[in-house]
Amino acid sequence: MRATTIHAPGDIRWEEVPDPTIAAPTDAIVRVLVGCVCGSDLWRYRGIEAIVRPGATIGHECVGEIVEVGEQVRDFRVGDVVVVPFVHCDGTCANCLAGVQSACVNMGFTASGQGEYARVTQADGSLVRVGTAAEPPSAAVLPSLLALSDVMATGWHAAVSAGVRPGATAVVVGDGAVGLCGVIAARQLGAERVIALSRTPARRALAAEFGATDVIAERGAEAEAWIAEATDGVGADAVLECVGTTDSMATAFAVARAGATVGFVGVPAGVEDFPIRRAFGRNIGLAGGMAPVRRYLPELLGLVLDGAIDPGRVFDLTLPMAQAADGYRAMDERRAIKVLLQP
Amino acid sequence: MRATTIHAPGDIRWEEVPDPTIAAPTDAIVRVLVGCVCGSDLWRYRGIEAIVRPGATIGHECVGEIVEVGEQVRDFRVGDVVVVPFVHCDGTCANCLAGVQSACVNMGFTASGQGEYARVTQADGSLVRVGTAAEPPSAAVLPSLLALSDVMATGWHAAVSAGVRPGATAVVVGDGAVGLCGVIAARQLGAERVIALSRTPARRALAAEFGATDVIAERGAEAEAWIAEATDGVGADAVLECVGTTDSMATAFAVARAGATVGFVGVPAGVEDFPIRRAFGRNIGLAGGMAPVRRYLPELLGLVLDGAIDPGRVFDLTLPMAQAADGYRAMDERRAIKVLLQP
Repeated sequence: MRATTIHAPGDIRWEEVPDPTIAAPTDAIVRVLVGCVCGSDLWRYRGIEAIVRPGATIGHECVGEIVEVGEQVRDFRVGDVVVVPFVHCDGTCANCLAGVQSACVNMGFTASGQGEYARVTQADGSLVRVGTAAEPPSAAVLPSLLALSDVMATGWHAAVSAGVRPGATAVVVGDGAVGLCGVIAARQLGAERVIALSRTPARRALAAEFGATDVIAERGAEAEAWIAEATDGVGADAVLECVGTTDSMATAFAVARAGATVGFVGVPAGVEDFPIRRAFGRNIGLAGGMAPVRRYLPELLGLVLDGAIDPGRVFDLTLPMAQAADGYRAMDERRAIKVLLQP
Repeated sequence: MRATTIHAPGDIRWEEVPDPTIAAPTDAIVRVLVGCVCGSDLWRYRGIEAIVRPGATIGHECVGEIVEVGEQVRDFRVGDVVVVPFVHCDGTCANCLAGVQSACVNMGFTASGQGEYARVTQADGSLVRVGTAAEPPSAAVLPSLLALSDVMATGWHAAVSAGVRPGATAVVVGDGAVGLCGVIAARQLGAERVIALSRTPARRALAAEFGATDVIAERGAEAEAWIAEATDGVGADAVLECVGTTDSMATAFAVARAGATVGFVGVPAGVEDFPIRRAFGRNIGLAGGMAPVRRYLPELLGLVLDGAIDPGRVFDLTLPMAQAADGYRAMDERRAIKVLLQP
C-alpha cells in the first residue's frame, strides 16, 4: 500500500510500504476513509522528538472500513465503518476497567493512520461502529467522527480532568485543535465562562464559535493579570493545558485559583521546569495525561450525531494523502489548524 | 522574651528577642505551652533553603494559652488554650470558603512557635479552643494536640489529596512525622492495605503501630518492584508523597497505578525533575500542597479526644526550649523522629 512516512525532521513522504497484516487474533485491518495530521506528529516533524526509525509510517487518527479481522474479533466484521481511537485497549484489564484505557496492559497505537490501510490492535476493545460499507456515515459528519479518534476526546479529557463543573470559569491554554475541542468540552460540561488564549484570527473565531466567552490575545504575565482581573483576583476554577511546554504549564498554574486542577493533555515534549512550588503553595493539582479515548467515545458520538457538537470544524484544510507533506508544512507554519487527509 | 532563632545553617540559638505584640486588630498573642521542630525547619538548618534574616525566630507549631487579643477578635479570650495551625487564615475569603485555607488572602504564619510567646494573625479564623487556663488539656493529650497544628493535618491532607478510599491500597513515601501521620490518615480513611517505606527501626515500629500493614525497607526501583508484585502489577490506588525531593517524587509516581493520584505535602525544596512524562503516560495526577490545617482541625480534634488516633506518639524526644539546638541536631541526624519543646 501507500502511506505517509517520516524520514527525518521536515521530510514527509507518500510512498509504498508493506501492507499491514493481522499479527494477533485480536487485530483488525481497516481501509482508511479519512485520516489527519496531529499536533503531536509535529514534535517529530520539528525534530523535538526523535524519529525512532527513518521511513516509519506516521499518523494515528482515522475513520476506516474494516477489511479483515483476526479470529478472536467478535464484535466487528468486514464492512463495518469504525472510529479508530489513536490508542487501542482491550477493555478488560484493571486499567481499562478503572477508566484509564490509555494505560491498557495490552495498549497499542494506530501506526499508519495517514496511509491507505491501518492496523488496529485490540479491535473489540477499541473500535466504535459508526456505519457500514452499505450505510456509511455522511460526508458531512465524517470530519467530526474523525475528530473523535483523538482531538475531541483529548480536549474532553482535559476538561474532565480539570474538573469543569456547571457555572465554572474555565481557561483553555492552547489554541490548537485540542484546545479548541477543549472549549467545546468545557461548555458542554457546563462552564459559564470559557476564556481561550489565542492570537491567530482563524483560531480566535473558531474558539468563539465553539463557545468561548472570551478570547484573549494576552500571554504569560499579561494573561495572568487579565484573568486575575476577570475573576476578582481569585483565578480560574479549572484550567485546560493543551500544549505541553514549560511556558504553557507555567501559565496554566499561574491562572488557576487555589485548589483548582490543571487538566493537562498536551504531550509534555518540552516541560523542563514544572511549577511544583506554585502547585504546592496554592494547592493546584495536575490531572490528565494521554486521553482514554475509548472511555469517552460513546458519549461524544452521541453528541456529534445529535448535532450538539461539531468538532470536525477544526479541519480547515483538506488534502489528498499524497500531499501529506504540504499538510505538515501548513500546520507547522500555523497556516492550518488541522489537516484532513483523504486517500 | 526568649525564643529559638536561626543565624546560619546549623546555628540554632535560644536568646532574647522582642516580645510579639498585637500588630493588627485580628491578632492574638499566645503563651506557648508546647512547641516543636518541623522537618521543614531542617531545610533552613541544612542550608537547603535560604535564611532570609539571620537571627530570625523559627518554629511554626504550638499549643498555647491566649494572653492578649486584638480588638476585632470575637471568638477567643485571654485564658483560652488553643491549637495554633502553622498557617493562619481568615476563614471568610474565597479560598478559605473553597477549603484551601492555606491560600487565604490574609494568610499568615506562626513565627516564634519555639519561643515563649507567639503571635497568631487572624485569630478567629485560625484557632481552635481545646481548653482554658482553668481547665487545660491533660498532659497526656497535649502532644497529640500539638501534632494537629501541622504534621497530623498535613499527613491527613496527603491522604485526602491522594483520594484514599475504603478498601484501597495506599503507599506512604516518607517516614518522617508527616509520613507516619499519613499512615494514620490512610487507615482512618479506610485503606485496607497501607505500605510504608522505612529503614529506621523506631520509625518502622511506629508505622506498624499506626496501622501500616507492610513496612518495607526497599527504595527506588526495588520498592517499585515490591509494590508491583504486591498489587498484581497494577500499582497502588493512592500514594502519599511526604518528603519533597526528586527521588521521593519519582518513587511516588513509579508505584502509583494508572489513574491514581499522588497526594503531595512535602515542601518541594528539592524537586528538580518532576516526572511529568510518567504522569502523562499513566494518567497519574498530583494533588495537595501546603495543608489547609484549619479545614481538618475539628474532625481531627474529635478523633484525638475520642482516642481514635494518637499522633502525639511521633514525639520521641522532649527537651526544654533552651536546648532546641540539641533537638535540631537529633532530628538532622535522624536520632529523633520529632522533637517536642517545652518553655
